[in-house]
Amino acid sequence: MPFDHLIHQALLLTMEPRSRPLAHGFVAIQGTEIVAVGQAEDRENLPPARQYWDMNGDLVMPGLINNHCHAAMTLFRGLADDLPLDEWLQQHIFPAEARWVDYEFVYTGTLLAAAELIRGGVTAVADAYFWETAARQAFAESGLRGVAAQGVIDFPAPGVPNPTDNIRVAQEFIDSGSASSPPLITSTLFCHSPYTCSAPTLKQAKDLTRQRGLSFFIHLAETRWEEAQIRRQTGLSPVAYLDSLGILDEMTVAAHAVWVDPADQEILARRGVKICHCPECNLKLASGVAPIPDLLARGLVIGLGTDGAASNNNLNIFGEMNLAAKLHKAIRLDPTVMSAREVVELATSKGAQVLDLGEITGTLTPGKCADLIVVNLHQPHLTPLYDPYSHLVYAAAASDVQHVMVHGRWLMLDRRLLTLDWPTIKRKALALAERINSTAARFPA
Amino acid sequence: MPFDHLIHQALLLTMEPRSRPLAHGFVAIQGTEIVAVGQAEDRENLPPARQYWDMNGDLVMPGLINNHCHAAMTLFRGLADDLPLDEWLQQHIFPAEARWVDYEFVYTGTLLAAAELIRGGVTAVADAYFWETAARQAFAESGLRGVAAQGVIDFPAPGVPNPTDNIRVAQEFIDSGSASSPPLITSTLFCHSPYTCSAPTLKQAKDLTRQRGLSFFIHLAETRWEEAQIRRQTGLSPVAYLDSLGILDEMTVAAHAVWVDPADQEILARRGVKICHCPECNLKLASGVAPIPDLLARGLVIGLGTDGAASNNNLNIFGEMNLAAKLHKAIRLDPTVMSAREVVELATSKGAQVLDLGEITGTLTPGKCADLIVVNLHQPHLTPLYDPYSHLVYAAAASDVQHVMVHGRWLMLDRRLLTLDWPTIKRKALALAERINSTAARFPA
Repeated sequence: MPFDHLIHQALLLTMEPRSRPLAHGFVAIQGTEIVAVGQAEDRENLPPARQYWDMNGDLVMPGLINNHCHAAMTLFRGLADDLPLDEWLQQHIFPAEARWVDYEFVYTGTLLAAAELIRGGVTAVADAYFWETAARQAFAESGLRGVAAQGVIDFPAPGVPNPTDNIRVAQEFIDSGSASSPPLITSTLFCHSPYTCSAPTLKQAKDLTRQRGLSFFIHLAETRWEEAQIRRQTGLSPVAYLDSLGILDEMTVAAHAVWVDPADQEILARRGVKICHCPECNLKLASGVAPIPDLLARGLVIGLGTDGAASNNNLNIFGEMNLAAKLHKAIRLDPTVMSAREVVELATSKGAQVLDLGEITGTLTPGKCADLIVVNLHQPHLTPLYDPYSHLVYAAAASDVQHVMVHGRWLMLDRRLLTLDWPTIKRKALALAERINSTAARFPA
Repeated sequence: MPFDHLIHQALLLTMEPRSRPLAHGFVAIQGTEIVAVGQAEDRENLPPARQYWDMNGDLVMPGLINNHCHAAMTLFRGLADDLPLDEWLQQHIFPAEARWVDYEFVYTGTLLAAAELIRGGVTAVADAYFWETAARQAFAESGLRGVAAQGVIDFPAPGVPNPTDNIRVAQEFIDSGSASSPPLITSTLFCHSPYTCSAPTLKQAKDLTRQRGLSFFIHLAETRWEEAQIRRQTGLSPVAYLDSLGILDEMTVAAHAVWVDPADQEILARRGVKICHCPECNLKLASGVAPIPDLLARGLVIGLGTDGAASNNNLNIFGEMNLAAKLHKAIRLDPTVMSAREVVELATSKGAQVLDLGEITGTLTPGKCADLIVVNLHQPHLTPLYDPYSHLVYAAAASDVQHVMVHGRWLMLDRRLLTLDWPTIKRKALALAERINSTAARFPA
């Protein structure tokens, strides 16, 4: 039986532990699955296949994992920047969300995000927002793999005007997902933060995800203000506080983890909490710099995330890799921390583990799903090539991603989106933005 | 008389002080010069022109200025990363330079750099390296505007095996430039640093540039090691030491300025020294974070630079803008520093002033040279649009640059390079890289 796809003449990064780059590499795909990986200089030595894809030396690697995103917020991209956090949230983002976020907004915004994610080489995404049924629908249409998490917060929220309904809405979202949603999307919940969710809410939410065997997402220790606030209220750091509630375990994914001292780091390590590092957002919102090298040294599993486009302002994992590799070098005055190879692992194999998807994606390994990207190396800014990890982290850009496959299906070929109708998404996004802008009055006359 | 070019239906950023973005903007060009800038919703209201260029709402702005580059080092891109500075320099970069850098290397490497610079929207570049006659030739062929600076160092250097020749070689370079080189390229010199050039060398070099009315370039206060070293040798900070030699004035361009305390900042401000901020390189080499908001508050004129591709590893001013806007926010825990608009000024109008080119480029102003770029806004990651400065700094990428004009001449249209023969440059670059790699033994088998 010939394979369905034979991707060959690639510079192959499998991202398996201790793997080396393979010149003249090939990946054979049957259905949704990788069935063989190897090297063959000549076409006659390749296994038989229905379709051959000659990569002409371009780089083939696992798709990138975006571990933290609020996809629909792409519709607020650049609405307000360079402001104090309070003013940004209270005067811009929260009012805009209250006024504009509904099912249609989240559906269109998530399709827009999916277009950007695919064009940037992301094959799996963890999304957290409100009206998450709409996000799940949009991701399903896009063909992306991912985790859709319904937001839980003890304030009136889009689609959940009465916060006492927040757990019930999340439970219905989860249950409707396990019944009907496509297999690529896992449905779970996301507690906004220790300072916006009460202890009972946090515990109920964690109980629910624990019962269902699902990941529990939360923003944790993002800002100095949060750290001070939780200490004032509880006498504990945010990490210690969540630990006292029994929230922290290996199925908890904490985004940010900026303000975590050695005692917090010890708790996170002991509980096996998964961490999502969002360096671009942490810089732009002036939250600070997470002690990622320390957390890695303690053996924590860490991935990368963009956060939402209202605070970043893009969904570009290449940018996060670039910054994650460089930022900690300067903060510690040590150029040897966060090597290029290590950072590519965060964006692929480790990122998949953060989402409890390590068994099915994150490396190019026979038996795993065929989630891969092709990076066009034949460009001035990637010439010459001495080290592909270095190029991915220090020189490449999202726009260098040429083709994207998820679950054995091409989502993009030659930068053309195959699952999404970009002109329609764009038209709908611009119509929504025009309405948003009419109240924000920001667009130049 | 009709104009030569009429670029219209643009979202226009002139980058003049206090200017606002202009919807339906146009730029009229006659010969090498901008002759009119305005707004016109309908084609019949446009001035007559030989060629109309309908931008369909894309963004038109002054070209970006790269204030610090070692262009030929693109051929060492990714050769060695994530190493201690000493090991990186002594075991990788210096030996590679000693073995491989000659006229042909610099010529080919600079053509490669020029291709990347143009594709990233740079219209003027300050280059500093050895065999700078070759770099000047390559830049001239590319059509880029710029400053070519011959390196001066008190060690044996490529093309200057005997360091006692270093000033003479630089002087010949400068004189040959004023006699024969094309008008877009200014020829001057670059002293490597206070720790690699003796006091007599620094003074002779500065005297030479002062006599000719040229900018004097130098790496200054880049690393903590340099700061300690100069203090040990002279009892002064690097800045105070150069000031004691009479080196600092408004025609001195200091790259990096990372380790400058308030007393140093006061000297730099009083002397009117121009600063080039290279945040990506400063992070990657773990040099530290320059106190740019403080220097701006003191009124210094600051531009952005990429440094060489051996230490960055690209020549992407969009990346520098992005990082310059975000890095200082997190370091100071203040999201209001380094606004998007201010950062775009560093990359355009201020950058031109740093290179003493403020009268002829850096803004879209009638009477200045026609150096401009067109940024394609019709893409998922730039949708929607509320604020063009925000998009340029926080969301856009080098690959979004669609067209580039320098001195009234298109260097790139629809991302196709018009002045450079990319296949030939690539072939020559890869041949050189293969030889370099055969000794470095880094490329994956």
